[in-house]
Amino acid sequence: MMPRFVNVAIGQLGPIAKSETRTAVVARLSALMRQAHANGCDLIVYPELALTTFFPRWYMADQAEIDLYFEREMPGRDTQALFALAKELRIGFCLGYAELTIEDGIVRRYNTAILVDKDARIVSKYRKVHLPGHAEHEPWRKFQHLEKRYFEPGKSFGVANAFGGVIGMAICNDRRWPETYRVMGLQGVEMVLIGYNTPVHNPPAPEHDDLSLFHNRLVMQSGAYQNGTWVIGVAKGGIEEGIDHIAGSCIIAPSGEIVAACATKGDEIALARCDLDLCNSYKQTIFNFDVHRQPQAYGMIVERKGTALMADGSPVQKE
Amino acid sequence: MMPRFVNVAIGQLGPIAKSETRTAVVARLSALMRQAHANGCDLIVYPELALTTFFPRWYMADQAEIDLYFEREMPGRDTQALFALAKELRIGFCLGYAELTIEDGIVRRYNTAILVDKDARIVSKYRKVHLPGHAEHEPWRKFQHLEKRYFEPGKSFGVANAFGGVIGMAICNDRRWPETYRVMGLQGVEMVLIGYNTPVHNPPAPEHDDLSLFHNRLVMQSGAYQNGTWVIGVAKGGIEEGIDHIAGSCIIAPSGEIVAACATKGDEIALARCDLDLCNSYKQTIFNFDVHRQPQAYGMIVERKGTALMADGSPVQKE
Repeated sequence: MMPRFVNVAIGQLGPIAKSETRTAVVARLSALMRQAHANGCDLIVYPELALTTFFPRWYMADQAEIDLYFEREMPGRDTQALFALAKELRIGFCLGYAELTIEDGIVRRYNTAILVDKDARIVSKYRKVHLPGHAEHEPWRKFQHLEKRYFEPGKSFGVANAFGGVIGMAICNDRRWPETYRVMGLQGVEMVLIGYNTPVHNPPAPEHDDLSLFHNRLVMQSGAYQNGTWVIGVAKGGIEEGIDHIAGSCIIAPSGEIVAACATKGDEIALARCDLDLCNSYKQTIFNFDVHRQPQAYGMIVERKGTALMADGSPVQKE
Repeated sequence: MMPRFVNVAIGQLGPIAKSETRTAVVARLSALMRQAHANGCDLIVYPELALTTFFPRWYMADQAEIDLYFEREMPGRDTQALFALAKELRIGFCLGYAELTIEDGIVRRYNTAILVDKDARIVSKYRKVHLPGHAEHEPWRKFQHLEKRYFEPGKSFGVANAFGGVIGMAICNDRRWPETYRVMGLQGVEMVLIGYNTPVHNPPAPEHDDLSLFHNRLVMQSGAYQNGTWVIGVAKGGIEEGIDHIAGSCIIAPSGEIVAACATKGDEIALARCDLDLCNSYKQTIFNFDVHRQPQAYGMIVERKGTALMADGSPVQKE
């Protein structure tokens, strides 16, 4: 069998100001792409919502104002240059953006990522399943997190055959949920691409703030190990419109080990030569699902959404 | 609401020789129990198969020989002393052992753990769901791991109301599977008790040996964080019958942080004052399942056991 190496670049971004144009952002993405190409990369992975500032931090009543943050076509007028550069350099990319589309005459809005191959063709699209935050304006918060208001959730986690392997995508909050990795693991995923925007401060649980980088790594490392897959985690980091965001972008091997990481909170690439066949020793032994999984004991995972809790949040005491 | 602290002791064991009697082992368990009591503990957690050497490392053709490692009643003649001491000291315990029982006239064998309250009553029983290893003799291995031969799998993960909270159990290999924690998390679990015997060397994948302690912690820490629960991991460590086992026993908070750990590979307690209400800040915010889980995207987790793989172990290339 041919060796299956994919040279992957993290395309970490620093903050994007509200006033920054798509053209300016695409120039930044292009600069990172050129660096990745100069370092021999096959693929560069950009963050979630990589074309604009993280707009769900603001409550906006005017849908027209909200829709300014969305892309109606991909590539569009502003992003065409990135596709053209990718084709010229023969490098693939993964890009997160806000997607506005019409389905059966109805406007739909998703938090989306696409995988683009070396011919600049979109080979896979993913729409974020686990939208965090809240749907109504909550003025007590230092800043809003209105993803549940501005987007609707995607329906599934898929994989694509690309770059010589089985590639999946997830976005931000998806990475905290083991179900995300497992559904792709059951499709043989060998590399999961995950962009994120994660504020250091979590208004409903500030007691977690000191742990945000630890949690970021913990969930991606366990997701990698427990499914025998590479995970590429890519941040938009730094202080954006006054709000500090974790960086912590890293590449995680199927062993769960971090093998590459960014060292700043700004625009930066980090890279690794990822051997997809390193997945096999996990998928064929300790996590050989066919031999060891016990789905008959897992029914509750799909049968119920949540846990019954008392009004004060304590668990229901069973008889 | 009353504070809900549970003072928990890890009751880590060093190796148990094949020649060691149950009486001798119970004396070791009792010594640890007395230490835990002297340190104000409510509960001591012992490892998997804590009454004998880890016998699945040997292929035995004679069922009568195998059955010598099993308990037919609990408490039995040899374990009665441990229950009596627990009642005297008013301390609970969790104990792993090989269980032989008759169900509808059929002999059943399980890898079992029980939770015993301060009145020495068994309040919960768990039978290991994820049996690792293999079912047939594989002489090429340095040692066998015949759990799939000597036990049948348990059917479910449950929780019990005990020690003022919602307590679950899992055993050894269960801890590597996120489904284990999730099924209990969906029942509001606040503390998961996990005993294990884990050889440093994994014959089918020796390339993982250097990472065995890292993996041990990674899976328990992520299981704790992703479900907002305490996890108590308890090893039988050290060189048992010539085979080296990891120790790495630790207590993990709902944040995923390790807050107590053993420092040796032998008989040792470590302890923590576990505030069950620390679970709430995770269960009510970032992992509020009712608000954030998306079970409609998880169907594959129960619909399929494994991943379709090619004969050489590579993933099936999809169209």
